[in-house]
Amino acid sequence: MKRSRKLTFLLAVLVALACPLLARAADPTAADVQTHLDYVWTLVAAALVFFMQAGFACVEAGFTRAKNAVNIMMKNLMDFAVGSIAFWAIGFGLMFGASASGWIGTSGFFLSDFTPGGDPWVLAFWMFQVVFAATAATIVSGAMAERTKFTAYLVYSFFISAFIYPLMGGWAWGGLYHGGGWLEKLGFIDFAGSTVVHSVGGWAALAGAIVLGPRIGKYDSKGRPRAIPGHNLPLAALGVFILWLGWFGFNPGSTTAGNKDIAMIFVNTNLAAAAGVISALMAIWTIAKKPDLAMALNGGLAGLVAITAPCNNVTPASAVVIGLFAGVLVVCSVLIIDRIGVDDPVGAVSVHAVNGVWGTLAAAIFNIEGFTLHQLGVQALGCATAFVWTFSTAYVLFRIIKATMGLRVTAEEEIEGLDIGEHGEEAYPDFTTVSDHGVSSIFGPKAAKEALRHHGAIEPEPSR
Amino acid sequence: MKRSRKLTFLLAVLVALACPLLARAADPTAADVQTHLDYVWTLVAAALVFFMQAGFACVEAGFTRAKNAVNIMMKNLMDFAVGSIAFWAIGFGLMFGASASGWIGTSGFFLSDFTPGGDPWVLAFWMFQVVFAATAATIVSGAMAERTKFTAYLVYSFFISAFIYPLMGGWAWGGLYHGGGWLEKLGFIDFAGSTVVHSVGGWAALAGAIVLGPRIGKYDSKGRPRAIPGHNLPLAALGVFILWLGWFGFNPGSTTAGNKDIAMIFVNTNLAAAAGVISALMAIWTIAKKPDLAMALNGGLAGLVAITAPCNNVTPASAVVIGLFAGVLVVCSVLIIDRIGVDDPVGAVSVHAVNGVWGTLAAAIFNIEGFTLHQLGVQALGCATAFVWTFSTAYVLFRIIKATMGLRVTAEEEIEGLDIGEHGEEAYPDFTTVSDHGVSSIFGPKAAKEALRHHGAIEPEPSR
Amino acid sequence: MKRSRKLTFLLAVLVALACPLLARAADPTAADVQTHLDYVWTLVAAALVFFMQAGFACVEAGFTRAKNAVNIMMKNLMDFAVGSIAFWAIGFGLMFGASASGWIGTSGFFLSDFTPGGDPWVLAFWMFQVVFAATAATIVSGAMAERTKFTAYLVYSFFISAFIYPLMGGWAWGGLYHGGGWLEKLGFIDFAGSTVVHSVGGWAALAGAIVLGPRIGKYDSKGRPRAIPGHNLPLAALGVFILWLGWFGFNPGSTTAGNKDIAMIFVNTNLAAAAGVISALMAIWTIAKKPDLAMALNGGLAGLVAITAPCNNVTPASAVVIGLFAGVLVVCSVLIIDRIGVDDPVGAVSVHAVNGVWGTLAAAIFNIEGFTLHQLGVQALGCATAFVWTFSTAYVLFRIIKATMGLRVTAEEEIEGLDIGEHGEEAYPDFTTVSDHGVSSIFGPKAAKEALRHHGAIEPEPSR
Repeated sequence: MKRSRKLTFLLAVLVALACPLLARAADPTAADVQTHLDYVWTLVAAALVFFMQAGFACVEAGFTRAKNAVNIMMKNLMDFAVGSIAFWAIGFGLMFGASASGWIGTSGFFLSDFTPGGDPWVLAFWMFQVVFAATAATIVSGAMAERTKFTAYLVYSFFISAFIYPLMGGWAWGGLYHGGGWLEKLGFIDFAGSTVVHSVGGWAALAGAIVLGPRIGKYDSKGRPRAIPGHNLPLAALGVFILWLGWFGFNPGSTTAGNKDIAMIFVNTNLAAAAGVISALMAIWTIAKKPDLAMALNGGLAGLVAITAPCNNVTPASAVVIGLFAGVLVVCSVLIIDRIGVDDPVGAVSVHAVNGVWGTLAAAIFNIEGFTLHQLGVQALGCATAFVWTFSTAYVLFRIIKATMGLRVTAEEEIEGLDIGEHGEEAYPDFTTVSDHGVSSIFGPKAAKEALRHHGAIEPEPSR
Repeated sequence: MKRSRKLTFLLAVLVALACPLLARAADPTAADVQTHLDYVWTLVAAALVFFMQAGFACVEAGFTRAKNAVNIMMKNLMDFAVGSIAFWAIGFGLMFGASASGWIGTSGFFLSDFTPGGDPWVLAFWMFQVVFAATAATIVSGAMAERTKFTAYLVYSFFISAFIYPLMGGWAWGGLYHGGGWLEKLGFIDFAGSTVVHSVGGWAALAGAIVLGPRIGKYDSKGRPRAIPGHNLPLAALGVFILWLGWFGFNPGSTTAGNKDIAMIFVNTNLAAAAGVISALMAIWTIAKKPDLAMALNGGLAGLVAITAPCNNVTPASAVVIGLFAGVLVVCSVLIIDRIGVDDPVGAVSVHAVNGVWGTLAAAIFNIEGFTLHQLGVQALGCATAFVWTFSTAYVLFRIIKATMGLRVTAEEEIEGLDIGEHGEEAYPDFTTVSDHGVSSIFGPKAAKEALRHHGAIEPEPSR
Repeated sequence: MKRSRKLTFLLAVLVALACPLLARAADPTAADVQTHLDYVWTLVAAALVFFMQAGFACVEAGFTRAKNAVNIMMKNLMDFAVGSIAFWAIGFGLMFGASASGWIGTSGFFLSDFTPGGDPWVLAFWMFQVVFAATAATIVSGAMAERTKFTAYLVYSFFISAFIYPLMGGWAWGGLYHGGGWLEKLGFIDFAGSTVVHSVGGWAALAGAIVLGPRIGKYDSKGRPRAIPGHNLPLAALGVFILWLGWFGFNPGSTTAGNKDIAMIFVNTNLAAAAGVISALMAIWTIAKKPDLAMALNGGLAGLVAITAPCNNVTPASAVVIGLFAGVLVVCSVLIIDRIGVDDPVGAVSVHAVNGVWGTLAAAIFNIEGFTLHQLGVQALGCATAFVWTFSTAYVLFRIIKATMGLRVTAEEEIEGLDIGEHGEEAYPDFTTVSDHGVSSIFGPKAAKEALRHHGAIEPEPSR
């Protein structure tokens, strides 16, 4: 009798346990479907982040001169192509491979961690990571626009995607696979990469702009900066809209999971960008007496860069404050960098490096779980690490390129435009263009050519 | 014994009940995953709707003159930035806050309904709503293009996003949060906003165009309209493709749920747009003897606006009919509005207001559940409400702006282009442009300037 | 007693069985949610593929002359609009309707397989298929650019979307609905359409280019090809970025299911494209001594076309190899086709037909499940079928159009540009353009006009 009762009970338990198992035989479980949703979300987000490549290309081309537009589209195409292959072969392994030390990964090169039939999550994750690596790489292009040798740019592209970015990335994010980078073990907060992606891109951009020197005509004989207007502002504005769209993949996609967390990240991302536009507009309107489109656009990007680190741990109201400050910061930074003799045609250093730092600090300052000095210190350490590592390696890399293959085109080619000199193509052959702003408008075309004949007259690369 | 049996039974029941609970501890339930899917879908759709801002910017810039392109991109950037902040601070609360009357919401300002750790659905919902509010705002820009003061536009942007749109929206859609707007309680059908978004934008556009008066050179001395050709039709066409894409978020995203309903909405949206392109092309080809690109593009937009209200309650075949009619309607409306002296450079009133009405009525006419006169009456009431509310408030707003800060730039600035006058920038400094169509082509540049010197000759703002 | 125990047991079993049923009453099951996810993924992918229309439009317009840009945007708009309606009315039924023979479907016209309240999956599936049909149609546009009558293009658009594409598609893919096309029954692998979509488009493009003959000025008096540069390379580059983005819907969306398979497809798609860019650049750099942007862009597209068939059955490393080969192939093919007297302004035949064949063969060569000669034979048969069917039907269609309504504009119109002649609009009226490359640059504008007066001098359509 007792036995019989026990049996009854056991059978009931077995049936109870079996019912989800029976369901599993025919149908997916809820956990399976959640996994599938994570794939779909992460990969849709990756597609949006990929599209940022188009945004960067449009912004950079729009903010520079018509005579270099082919070169600029080419660079933006190539850094993604070269970066994809480099990150597949080398970068991903260094960033997320197994690592005992937390300093460098040593497995997973060529996606060797994946075998057909195995868990394809590593592929979804790689796809999301490769578009991040490419973002870091492409930022540099803008600061080096209109004077960099194409071959030199290809070499640089390879190195940042294969080495410079992955190492920094592994320190802050590598724990997802390799057991923990040293920075994340200290509690460093950089949810979607204000430091890891944007500061890294921005500091490399600074190194490149310094080693290159300013464009011919950017500074007058007394060293005062001159504006060299971009040739297609509607294209630049379209680029910013595309980037804003892409950021809705960049930030919320960094959950790599389709869950409720993405809602606040969307809202914060949008509010910070909107606030950045408004405050940058107000700042430049106050300073220059005109509401300048280029600055308003950069204000939006500054807000987006700044909210990237703290998008998941601050309130929407804080996001507005972060964006407002970012917009002012980018305007001041652009004006200062211009004045100290660094020629950054699109403001890449101000948008990505300066606001990358601001956003990373803001993740501690506006932390939803409360501000602590310790956290702020960790954030500052992360920022400093990114600066020291990236600036120094990029500076050395550009110096080596300069000393060997050459980093900059000739003055003749720069004045004629890189499209003809580097690529043998014109961007707009059917249009009548005035492509020598910045030179002939100071010196007159004749004087410019003459000056080039007797070199020293124009110093294409000021010694620093 | 009896007790023992009871215990056995109770244990079995507990185990049975526990099995999903146990699963829940480790895994999400199917309902959880569905909720996550709703978040992902709603937010991806919001991202697509956001991208419509780029589409509107490209269409408006492409359909107008090169000398105003910076101003146009600027307006489209700013109405989204200002609109986002205004809708966050004020508009969302008025539209969806708690409301006893069904006339106005009174909570949720600054997203105060959300507290960290609370249900973040309000954030996902806000994100989807803010891009709708911005769509209504940006529609107006096109009708007021090439002659509106930038500061005046900023003021208008704030008011439509903070007050005009949210009140109308709350009447038709507020029930989602505030217990029911009065229109939806009557059974008003406007699934994705032919009336709430597009007519509101379109009627405000009409008010703006009337208060502003036509562009200099739009009408000859006898009051006959002249075509002022857009400066970049490929850009406008790209804009329409972007808008079409965005509508795949706008309409099916309005489910705010990832379910089977979105399939028919996608199909209806696409078929109505395609039909609108074809019928508008046929109409203009018949009338003007040439297959005009601008009209075909507007035909597509007209079809999209018209299917917005009924996208979820008509069959695909009905969607084709709705689109065909929309395409013809937009062509006739553009020609008529042009002739009665209202200068709407991009056809915003015809596309959004006129076809917003048509689509809203079509939701009753082609209702999958059968046509009733009562429903048609409710639809007409909704359309009339949107017209009366929006046109009158927008008209008063523009009148006040005109009487105080001024709504229109000076004639000199208008002829030179707003890019220089308002922003101190040129859109295309590297290109040789002919930027005074519409004036010098009638009067010759010299006569135009002379005419301006002795004012009365050109009447920049006809009294109405 | 015994009865009581049995009852206890039965009740426990019932409760156990009921718990998921009870849950089902209130909540969706995991299988329901998976279905919803499949809808969301398939439709988001369809939206991305739709956006490829914008990409094709930008690429084609950018690679051709300013004087034809309106015509090109118009064609790309119309082939989608006409194609949508044609595929709804006719094509979908022929491709996926019920079929006893496996040769042609005979039901589902006008989406008649769907009744309101029925399973809407057919709508989701139609939406994904219509954007594929439109892709095949739009490919042809590029090869026929700058000389085709607009009315002729409309007729062709209807026929490819209604008949030519659907029949080939049904043979390879129809099994999803109609019980199996004959090619898929043989085991033909074409996961996302290297053959079904791209080769079909490419072979029709070849037929069109041959029947039309080359553009005036494309070949000199000795038959040597001349480069006719595209008028807006940044637009073309933006188009390629848009296409690359769209391919993240095209290939992984072809699962029509949100599951883990999409990860490898994303990765393969991206790696093949990146590899194609790099190898095409290297090839053209070697041959022409300059890193040509147009070729690098076409290299990326070639990689994307080639990975389309095998995206789901090769490893990432194979995808790199497939892309590398595609990039070289497209460069060689463009140069050869140019030399044999076929004027394909954008390289559509090389990108879509030649690499469509390559990708289809690669699906056998790099098959993850092992190479077999039999599979390679089936793949070759599929490629040959697509060529024979498409080229012959398209050739006959274009010949009939030529003999009846006329396929090509007059020489005068071609030299002036199709925008004025066909549409009465200019693409860029505010800009000073030089729109007669390819004629006046050989003959001088005066000589060109004279030559036209005495016809025979310029042979607008070489006899073949």
